[in-house]
Amino acid sequence: TVEHIFKEIFKAGLELQEDDHRKALLVSRKKKQEDTVVTVRGHKVGDGNVTFVFGPCAVESYEQVAEVAKSIKGKGLKMIRGGAYKPRTSPYDFQGLGLEGLKILKRVADEFDLAVVSEIVNPADIETACEYIDVIQIGARNMQNFELLKAAGSVKKPVLLKRGLAATIDEFINAAEYILAQGNDQVILCERGIRTYERATRNTLDITAVPILKQETHLPVFVDVTHSTGRRDLLLPAAKAGIAIGADGIMAEVHPDPAVALSDAAQQMNLQQFDEFYDEILKSVPVKA
Amino acid sequence: TVEHIFKEIFKAGLELQEDDHRKALLVSRKKKQEDTVVTVRGHKVGDGNVTFVFGPCAVESYEQVAEVAKSIKGKGLKMIRGGAYKPRTSPYDFQGLGLEGLKILKRVADEFDLAVVSEIVNPADIETACEYIDVIQIGARNMQNFELLKAAGSVKKPVLLKRGLAATIDEFINAAEYILAQGNDQVILCERGIRTYERATRNTLDITAVPILKQETHLPVFVDVTHSTGRRDLLLPAAKAGIAIGADGIMAEVHPDPAVALSDAAQQMNLQQFDEFYDEILKSVPVKA
Amino acid sequence: TVEHIFKEIFKAGLELQEDDHRKALLVSRKKKQEDTVVTVRGHKVGDGNVTFVFGPCAVESYEQVAEVAKSIKGKGLKMIRGGAYKPRTSPYDFQGLGLEGLKILKRVADEFDLAVVSEIVNPADIETACEYIDVIQIGARNMQNFELLKAAGSVKKPVLLKRGLAATIDEFINAAEYILAQGNDQVILCERGIRTYERATRNTLDITAVPILKQETHLPVFVDVTHSTGRRDLLLPAAKAGIAIGADGIMAEVHPDPAVALSDAAQQMNLQQFDEFYDEILKSVPVKA
Amino acid sequence: TVEHIFKEIFKAGLELQEDDHRKALLVSRKKKQEDTVVTVRGHKVGDGNVTFVFGPCAVESYEQVAEVAKSIKGKGLKMIRGGAYKPRTSPYDFQGLGLEGLKILKRVADEFDLAVVSEIVNPADIETACEYIDVIQIGARNMQNFELLKAAGSVKKPVLLKRGLAATIDEFINAAEYILAQGNDQVILCERGIRTYERATRNTLDITAVPILKQETHLPVFVDVTHSTGRRDLLLPAAKAGIAIGADGIMAEVHPDPAVALSDAAQQMNLQQFDEFYDEILKSVPVKA
Repeated sequence: TVEHIFKEIFKAGLELQEDDHRKALLVSRKKKQEDTVVTVRGHKVGDGNVTFVFGPCAVESYEQVAEVAKSIKGKGLKMIRGGAYKPRTSPYDFQGLGLEGLKILKRVADEFDLAVVSEIVNPADIETACEYIDVIQIGARNMQNFELLKAAGSVKKPVLLKRGLAATIDEFINAAEYILAQGNDQVILCERGIRTYERATRNTLDITAVPILKQETHLPVFVDVTHSTGRRDLLLPAAKAGIAIGADGIMAEVHPDPAVALSDAAQQMNLQQFDEFYDEILKSVPVKA
Repeated sequence: TVEHIFKEIFKAGLELQEDDHRKALLVSRKKKQEDTVVTVRGHKVGDGNVTFVFGPCAVESYEQVAEVAKSIKGKGLKMIRGGAYKPRTSPYDFQGLGLEGLKILKRVADEFDLAVVSEIVNPADIETACEYIDVIQIGARNMQNFELLKAAGSVKKPVLLKRGLAATIDEFINAAEYILAQGNDQVILCERGIRTYERATRNTLDITAVPILKQETHLPVFVDVTHSTGRRDLLLPAAKAGIAIGADGIMAEVHPDPAVALSDAAQQMNLQQFDEFYDEILKSVPVKA
Repeated sequence: TVEHIFKEIFKAGLELQEDDHRKALLVSRKKKQEDTVVTVRGHKVGDGNVTFVFGPCAVESYEQVAEVAKSIKGKGLKMIRGGAYKPRTSPYDFQGLGLEGLKILKRVADEFDLAVVSEIVNPADIETACEYIDVIQIGARNMQNFELLKAAGSVKKPVLLKRGLAATIDEFINAAEYILAQGNDQVILCERGIRTYERATRNTLDITAVPILKQETHLPVFVDVTHSTGRRDLLLPAAKAGIAIGADGIMAEVHPDPAVALSDAAQQMNLQQFDEFYDEILKSVPVKA
Repeated sequence: TVEHIFKEIFKAGLELQEDDHRKALLVSRKKKQEDTVVTVRGHKVGDGNVTFVFGPCAVESYEQVAEVAKSIKGKGLKMIRGGAYKPRTSPYDFQGLGLEGLKILKRVADEFDLAVVSEIVNPADIETACEYIDVIQIGARNMQNFELLKAAGSVKKPVLLKRGLAATIDEFINAAEYILAQGNDQVILCERGIRTYERATRNTLDITAVPILKQETHLPVFVDVTHSTGRRDLLLPAAKAGIAIGADGIMAEVHPDPAVALSDAAQQMNLQQFDEFYDEILKSVPVKA
């Protein structure tokens, strides 16, 4: 079995190479030791403080977004999220208002001086989107839509990249690398739950992905408590766990009237629940800007 | 708990609606009872005979594709697959030859009179691709890239849609519906293994998805034995199981020299293995055209 | 990085050892090349013919078991299954008739000259069980109940070992090794579906586990089509796939009146469905004793 | 479809019953609103303070256990864990010292006045074990070993029940019910990670299981940070998340010299790491006894 040993040495050599390869990734902590701070309309993400991003699942109307924006602004927060292009399982579900939605978001953002996070789903829309929004979100279903990643990497806008439905951490890191490889290093990673056999929650929040991603990369890491749990009653505990384990930000969905929401009715908070949630979560935040 | 009973009746009503909704899908067997036969360059897919689609993972050169095409043609088969646009986990892996690859495929297809299946990853490329290929493949990572599905639905080319890495059968069916909803009913579904905890195979071949998809939809269903198993030694048993359970077609990767392949080296058959595989599988095929 | 290379060589050494370790397993095909044939009351399991094991989920009464036995006998088959000790998720579900159930099984077995397969769940019951049954079944939930495995290994009865709910193939093989290590090599392995995210079936039938187990071990491998699919409409296609891929046996549940069954009502066949199933499956069986 | 509506009403009735059934569980919060406090050798578990349980994976010698016990005692803690019966994947791995191990644990416990937690794997050993240990642990692989659960339920010792490798929360709750149904309500639940496709961690810590279990049952809930992560570098972040989300206790493995440990070498802390871990975690503990 000397032959076998040579084979193993060869294999070890391959692994060494692979290891070097990983070290060479632009997203790698080994490549760049200090944390990347992403600047969004003047707000610093990943500087040691916890960033909160709230907003409705989908943009439905100016009034709806404005109402949430007012509540966010009242808390002294800087960012709002809202979906204009909605990737939906069925083609017959509400697909979002599209460009019209982006325009509503921009109007609200200007009026309330908030930064806007919104998902883009077609590489062809990335450039136009840059005129309306402050952070390009790439959703879980598109985490390995490499054309979209390349398009997002080629503009000068921060990108919030969500982990795929069943993506490994390694695939997630490589997806982020697609963006950085195009020259855009303003990337925020977002853990949003993974698909498992457990049915008590919509997905399983992979909470230890947060410290792993912080260790392996220099990018800020958020936790989306809405999509990971899919349960309103778990938003607060999940957010507390996220902050305790070192997340740079928390995302959650808020809607003025969840019962009539055009998507994700069961998991969005109404404005009163939002107030209570935020009051409670403030008690867990270690440092406050 | 009369209130509770009313709530349950309401819920039952909702479920009824949902059920109706599902029946109304264009892909549904309830909507259209007879099997859809997809015609690819004159070859009928889903007519009761088993269709075989072989070819290299990636198009690397004219010579490489031609060599495989010759072997396919020698077996009296009608189709070849080959990737020109390769969605790869890492941005530094071989990304395919792109348009150049499509041109090679077309040249080979014309010379050997074979129909070509090739993956397209960007909605913007769909129209151009139609000039070069006979079947637009939509890969597992793009199963819920709804913009791509819509683009594929808006042309008059057959589409081979692969099941997503961790897609439910229901999500798979709805993804196909995106294509039909745009007016293109020439869709082939392809089971290619799902992501589970088991590591003995690259993915877990969900073999009973085949009869479920045949029952729920009227579309032809293929089994990709290469990506589901990721192991050369399992290609033949998996193909036998696929045919036995009612698959309309089998896909597998063949490369003249797998050891130097630019992708998926470990799981492609070489030409001799291909001959042996095909000899064996013919013994399992119930009806032969 | 010379240090690193030494580390890798050391690691390679460890892997070599582990590899040797695996070769040394008593269940390993490398240890024993020829197939193990398990003899059950004179009937040979794993000799190249397909063995069928049918019977009710749970023993409910003498009449119930006898009715199924009569139908089995009428088909010229040799074995019947039935649960006397039922491991149930809830303590308030029917837990089986226990010893009383074993006595019913023995009476039926003697009257119809059938071999009996029945699950034992407590190491303390193994010895007594040997007086009543011909094959000790160890269920999925107990695949890593190592005390039970050791007890089953220490008697001279064939054991049918089911794969755990979420066991890897490697763990499954090692569980079988626990039995052989105690001196009992009459072990039949049974793939019965694994737990995944997919909800269309009760479990996901890991069909390629069959050829992997046949390759790695010298033991007969069965497919339990009832528990893997949990759907009556999938029993036949799953059985066809199992036989096509090389399974040595097929297990399925049959009950005279599934609607009133005390467990698994939704997935058992009634006697007429059983007749139809068996007629159809016979067409798929390659060699018939 | 009036027929259909009646069917749905019938189904709704069934669900109502099931719902009532769940409410009727002895473990249910609906059955008993106040938290169950488990008393272990005078120490109260689940009274609002966080309990810490440290100790080696396996009992190897008196000296080894005593060294860890001394460190635990020095921190003012009350409990120690250690495995005497080790359920191992391979029959050739170290299986634990058995009764000898229990005796070592008792000696150490008496000398340091610590309560001892140790896993029992055979129903026949439960009674004897009661003479040596203070908490009977039932491990993940035995969560649905119902005979063992019944045996543990029939004695007057606290039980620490770990969630199965791939158990749903509902199955976990029902497993606990087996113990309470026998008359023993001193049960602690322990989340220890679930099996998923992700390979960066040994298992995936299902952190939101903690608030769900606290909501659904009245029992204390622990988080085992060692087995859920399998990585020494994740023990501290996982423990912080566990405490933040409301866990009643944290378990982790400590070994005087992990490199030579007979099991789980890669994930146990040495004594210095233990000191650092505990110093850090104390900063996260909300209330301190």
